Amino acid sequence: MDNPVLVEVTRGNIVESRHRGSIAIVDADGKLAFSAGDVEQGIFARSAIKALQAIPMVESGAAEALDYDDAELALACASHNGEHVHASSARMMLFKAGLSEENLMCGPQWPKHMEDCVSLIKADETPCQLHNNCSGKHAGFLAMAKTLGIPTENYIDFDHPVQAEIRNVIEQMSGGILGRDVCGTDGCSIPTYAMEQHKTALAFARFGTGVGLDQERSKAAEVLYEACVNEPYMVAGKQRFCTEVMDIFRGRVFAKTGAEGVFCAALPELGFGITLKCDDGTDRGAEVMMASIIRSLLPLSDEEEKGLRSWEHQQLKNRRDILVGEVRPVEDFKRLLKTM
Amino acid sequence: MDNPVLVEVTRGNIVESRHRGSIAIVDADGKLAFSAGDVEQGIFARSAIKALQAIPMVESGAAEALDYDDAELALACASHNGEHVHASSARMMLFKAGLSEENLMCGPQWPKHMEDCVSLIKADETPCQLHNNCSGKHAGFLAMAKTLGIPTENYIDFDHPVQAEIRNVIEQMSGGILGRDVCGTDGCSIPTYAMEQHKTALAFARFGTGVGLDQERSKAAEVLYEACVNEPYMVAGKQRFCTEVMDIFRGRVFAKTGAEGVFCAALPELGFGITLKCDDGTDRGAEVMMASIIRSLLPLSDEEEKGLRSWEHQQLKNRRDILVGEVRPVEDFKRLLKTM
Repeated sequence: MDNPVLVEVTRGNIVESRHRGSIAIVDADGKLAFSAGDVEQGIFARSAIKALQAIPMVESGAAEALDYDDAELALACASHNGEHVHASSARMMLFKAGLSEENLMCGPQWPKHMEDCVSLIKADETPCQLHNNCSGKHAGFLAMAKTLGIPTENYIDFDHPVQAEIRNVIEQMSGGILGRDVCGTDGCSIPTYAMEQHKTALAFARFGTGVGLDQERSKAAEVLYEACVNEPYMVAGKQRFCTEVMDIFRGRVFAKTGAEGVFCAALPELGFGITLKCDDGTDRGAEVMMASIIRSLLPLSDEEEKGLRSWEHQQLKNRRDILVGEVRPVEDFKRLLKTM
Repeated sequence: MDNPVLVEVTRGNIVESRHRGSIAIVDADGKLAFSAGDVEQGIFARSAIKALQAIPMVESGAAEALDYDDAELALACASHNGEHVHASSARMMLFKAGLSEENLMCGPQWPKHMEDCVSLIKADETPCQLHNNCSGKHAGFLAMAKTLGIPTENYIDFDHPVQAEIRNVIEQMSGGILGRDVCGTDGCSIPTYAMEQHKTALAFARFGTGVGLDQERSKAAEVLYEACVNEPYMVAGKQRFCTEVMDIFRGRVFAKTGAEGVFCAALPELGFGITLKCDDGTDRGAEVMMASIIRSLLPLSDEEEKGLRSWEHQQLKNRRDILVGEVRPVEDFKRLLKTM
C-alpha cells in the first residue's frame, strides 16, 4: 500500500521535496476514528512511547520511594536536548537511587544545539551519558531495578526484568505482542518493537484517559501525563515541538516525538490516541503532520493557533536568514483532515 | 506519477523507513539510457551542479590569471566540510583575487563534523563564511568578477553578470530554460533553478565527455573534471561520499551531492550523465541510489567494489557503536538496474 504524500517542502514557488506518511487516530475502546495509509504495518514507535516505558517505574513504587518530582518524571519520558538542566536532572535521578552516570548504558551523545556544545567545550568537558537524550529514561529504568532489589547491570537486555515488565505493560495497553521476532535495538541500546500503528494509538488513548486501565495503571498514567504537561521543558527543551506544543496547550495535548519520523499523542478531551509515521524517517515531515492533526481535531484559542502555526508551516531560512521556502501540509491532506 | 521506493532502512529484521526517488541517465546526445520515476518534473539540482557553475570562472580566464591550482579549482566545485584545509584554501582563493572573507555573501556555517567544531571553539574562534560549505564556489564567483573588472558587490543577485553567465552556460549545456519563474534561493543565497532531471543529466554527460561542447567549453569542463578527481578531498572532505568515491575510482567517476537529496554524476567511459533526486530530500537515500547505479553501470576492481559497498549498504550504528540496521537498495531497485 502506498502511503499518501502529506507534507511538501517548497523553495520559491516550487515544491522541492515530499513526505509521505501513515496516521492512526483511535479511541480508548480501540475504534479507529481516522486513518491515512497503512496502519496495519508494524512500525517501531521508538522514543515516542517513552511515557509508556516509564509506567513500570511508577507502578513499582520507585518514583515515590525516590521522591521524584514532576521535572524528574517528565525527564524519564523525555528525548531531551542534553542541555545543562537535563543532564543535571538525570544526575540527580541517579543520585537519589544511589547510582551515578557510570551505571547508564545509553552511551554518550553531544547536546542537540550547538550553543550547548560550545558551553561544554569551553568548560573543557566532553559529552557523557547524562547528555544522551534518553538519559532520564535510563535513569528511571535503573531507579526501578534498584528499588525492587533486582540487578542494575544489563538493564537494557531483552530478558532483564525491567524490559520484561515494559513489554508486559505495553502489550496490555495496546493489545499488541512484543516478541523477539519484532524486536530491534534502539539508538540508546534498549529493545524496541515493531507494532501495528493503531495498537500504539490505542495505548495512548488509554494513557490519556485511563479508560480500560485498572486503578493502579490509570493512576500511573495520570502521574506521568501530568508531569509531562506541567514540565514540558524537561521532555525536550528549547526550540522543540514537544516542549512548545505541550506548553501552549496547558494539559490539553500530550505529544512525544521518536526517531525515524514517528510521533505519538493523546488528546484526553476527545478520548483519542494518535500514532503517525513519516515513511522516510524525517522529523520535519512528522512534526507538520502532527501539528495539522492537532489543528483539525481541537478548537483553538488564539495563542494555541499562533503557537501551532509555526510548527505546521515551518519556515525554511538560509545561512543569511533569508526566507527561502516552507514545510507545510499538502492541500489533499488538509481536505482529508476535514473528513474527520 | 508516484516515484518508486528505491532504498530501505532496516532495524533488526524489519524495514523501518523507505526512500523514493527518480533517476535519469542520459548520453551526450540527450538519449535517455535509463530512467526511474518522473524525470520530466523540475527539480532544483542545488549544489550538485557546482561544477557547471564554475565553468564561467575558467572560461573567463580568471582561474588561469589567478593561478588557481587543482585543489582550488576543486574547492570551487565543492560542498566541503568546513575543515581547516577547506577554509584556508578558500581564503587563499580570495587573497589571490585581492579579496577577503568580507566580500563573501554565503553566510557563516559551522563545520560539518563535530571534531572540527571543537577545534574552532578551543581556538576561541567562531565559524565564518570561509567555513560555509559553498565558500569555494563563492570565491570563484568573486574571482571571475574581479578579473573581468565588473562589480564584486551583490554577485549573488539574479541580474548580476556572474549569475547571468552561469544561467547561459547551464542553458546551453542542458537545453533547459532558467527563468525567474523556476528560480528559488539556495542555502548560500545564490539563485537555484528547477529544471527537468534528464536535462541536468545531459549537461553532465557533456561535462564528462566534451561531446557537443565547443573547444573552449570542452577544455573548461576537462580542467574542472580533472581538478575534482585529482583533489577529491577538496570537493567534500572526510567521511564523505563524493570524496571517497572519486578517490577510489581515480578519474572514472565524477560525483557531486546537493542539498535535499539530489546527486549528479558523469561516467565518461560510458558517455553518461546521471541526475537523481530522493523525493524526501534525504542524503542517505540519495547516496545509496547513486552507489547502486555506479555499481550496476561500471565493471569494478576489488578495491572499487569494497569502497562502493560501504556507501551502498550503509551500516547504522547506535550510540554505543552497536550495529542496529542498514540503509540499502530494495530488491526491486536492484532488479530494475539489471535491465539497464
